Amino acid sequence: MGGDHGPSVTVPACLQILEKHPTLHLILVGDSDILQEQLKAHNAKPLVDTKRLVIHHASQRVEMNESPSQALRTKKDSSMRVALNLVKENQAGACVSAGNTGALMATARFVLKTLPGIDRPAIISTFPTGLSHKNVRILDLGANVDSAAENLLQFAVMGSVLASAVDNIENPKVCLLNIGEEEIKGNEQVKKASQLLTELGSLNYAGYIEGNELYKGEADIIVCDGFVGNVALKTTEGVAIFIGRLIKRAFHQNILTKLAGLIALPVLKLITKWIDPDRYNGASLIGLQGIVIKSHGGANAHAFSYAIQEAVIQVEKNIPQRISAEVERLLKGSSRETLPGENQ
Amino acid sequence: MGGDHGPSVTVPACLQILEKHPTLHLILVGDSDILQEQLKAHNAKPLVDTKRLVIHHASQRVEMNESPSQALRTKKDSSMRVALNLVKENQAGACVSAGNTGALMATARFVLKTLPGIDRPAIISTFPTGLSHKNVRILDLGANVDSAAENLLQFAVMGSVLASAVDNIENPKVCLLNIGEEEIKGNEQVKKASQLLTELGSLNYAGYIEGNELYKGEADIIVCDGFVGNVALKTTEGVAIFIGRLIKRAFHQNILTKLAGLIALPVLKLITKWIDPDRYNGASLIGLQGIVIKSHGGANAHAFSYAIQEAVIQVEKNIPQRISAEVERLLKGSSRETLPGENQ
Repeated sequence: MGGDHGPSVTVPACLQILEKHPTLHLILVGDSDILQEQLKAHNAKPLVDTKRLVIHHASQRVEMNESPSQALRTKKDSSMRVALNLVKENQAGACVSAGNTGALMATARFVLKTLPGIDRPAIISTFPTGLSHKNVRILDLGANVDSAAENLLQFAVMGSVLASAVDNIENPKVCLLNIGEEEIKGNEQVKKASQLLTELGSLNYAGYIEGNELYKGEADIIVCDGFVGNVALKTTEGVAIFIGRLIKRAFHQNILTKLAGLIALPVLKLITKWIDPDRYNGASLIGLQGIVIKSHGGANAHAFSYAIQEAVIQVEKNIPQRISAEVERLLKGSSRETLPGENQ
Repeated sequence: MGGDHGPSVTVPACLQILEKHPTLHLILVGDSDILQEQLKAHNAKPLVDTKRLVIHHASQRVEMNESPSQALRTKKDSSMRVALNLVKENQAGACVSAGNTGALMATARFVLKTLPGIDRPAIISTFPTGLSHKNVRILDLGANVDSAAENLLQFAVMGSVLASAVDNIENPKVCLLNIGEEEIKGNEQVKKASQLLTELGSLNYAGYIEGNELYKGEADIIVCDGFVGNVALKTTEGVAIFIGRLIKRAFHQNILTKLAGLIALPVLKLITKWIDPDRYNGASLIGLQGIVIKSHGGANAHAFSYAIQEAVIQVEKNIPQRISAEVERLLKGSSRETLPGENQ
């Protein structure tokens, strides 16, 4: 029900992805009248008949500007909450939502709980890099502020699992986002996290990276605090829009520049095709006992289908179980190995 | 002596700016042999004869990769240190350097000391916005990590002084950089800073801004912690370079796109002309008892002359004294006003 467009986007997205995955089943959680209508409008009867697309009614919805705590308190039958309950009860393998991020995070944390050994879940998303066919996953993008070194270490482990299991990267390269200006480079948390990652030894930790290197393709996973990651993410968006506007303005100067624009437009459009922002839609809330994917609120059906696609892969790859196993193996094991005297 | 190009850039930059400002005098601090040579190479004899351009010898230089503490300890006769001493002794109105930022900050702080009422100096720079003729100043860009709410408040006051005195903006609009994703929006420091700014009342505080709004032209001053600001700054740089590369690659596809590129190039060059990155060269280290301007290490002579230009304006406008007065008036005054019972 969420996002800027609600079921008018999510329903056709479901149809697109069901066509690609013949064994996939989807549950639409929300206002059944509205959903029925959308299913009719998109001729979904065959899929409904085979039960590959079913409606699960929820009487409420979380508004986009609603505070997470209010949503938690007063929206116990919201589409978001009900969908997360279905994941908890193993009736669904994952929850995909375009709704209110804060409310989704708070509700998911409340309903699903974090994995053992994970103190805080994180938001992770994939971005294109300057190298073709190479992406980078960055976390945390805003679930946490004031992350401690131990949180950053856990983010690194979770990111590594995602990169190796979902992106099929062997030994993914992990970097910590830092700054180079301060007298003693970086802040305490990042410096300590770097030390923890070095001591751990088991991850492919490649040291610090700065903001200008985010999209250079040198790292597979970039780890940072959620405040910092969110600022980097939003700044990226802002700069891209700013440059886009400047390009438009430049080609709208006069009749000659407009003609040049007509000639250049197909070439410039190549860039959007290369980057294909739709393909990167779908951030994961990881570290929870269940799979939750957050679509951009403004996503179109094509983009939303990529968010579902990410959920499908994470279900197939058993991501929460894998994270759990890695946390058990690496974080518990390492502290015994590197600090042999500590617990004895 | 610093930066990627040393005196081969700084000397011609001096000549450019001396031509513009007939009453300006500049002191070149560094290796006198190298500087003599550069002066000769650039036919600076008339300026040397009138003593508008003099050399002050310094036997050492701080390397770009040297640690600030090492520079402080072992480079007591570095060009940087000697130049800052000249400012301290009132033999120079300002110090302009393209050298090692960390070392410049540490040395400036050691030599000049912070202004009374300012706990930490900050790095502030100017950026273009989507609105023509409107710039935004952002601080801190990396002098501090883990800034407390009180530091952010001081940054806001210093930024306001700069915007009103240097940019001639009446009642400059101040925003705090924050994120919108976390359950209780933002981190403690930013939320407390917002409360302090609201209580203060005297600044034109306009609330929170997110990373995607940095260059929208809505704020005159954007305040943030140095770690966050540095990541935003570097991310901006990274995204701009990334998009630039994509544009180049798109126009290099084949003979037709190359032809389109030939036609589009002058239009795309307009954008560089509009933004004119050279013009934004010169970050200020503010909050010190003296004016220190940091040029980009890779600046060309034209860009470096803008850093000197910023120093000239700040000298003319008595920036440190104005900041001091505003801190005295606003921060000491306000705490008496808003907390009438506190000190009695």
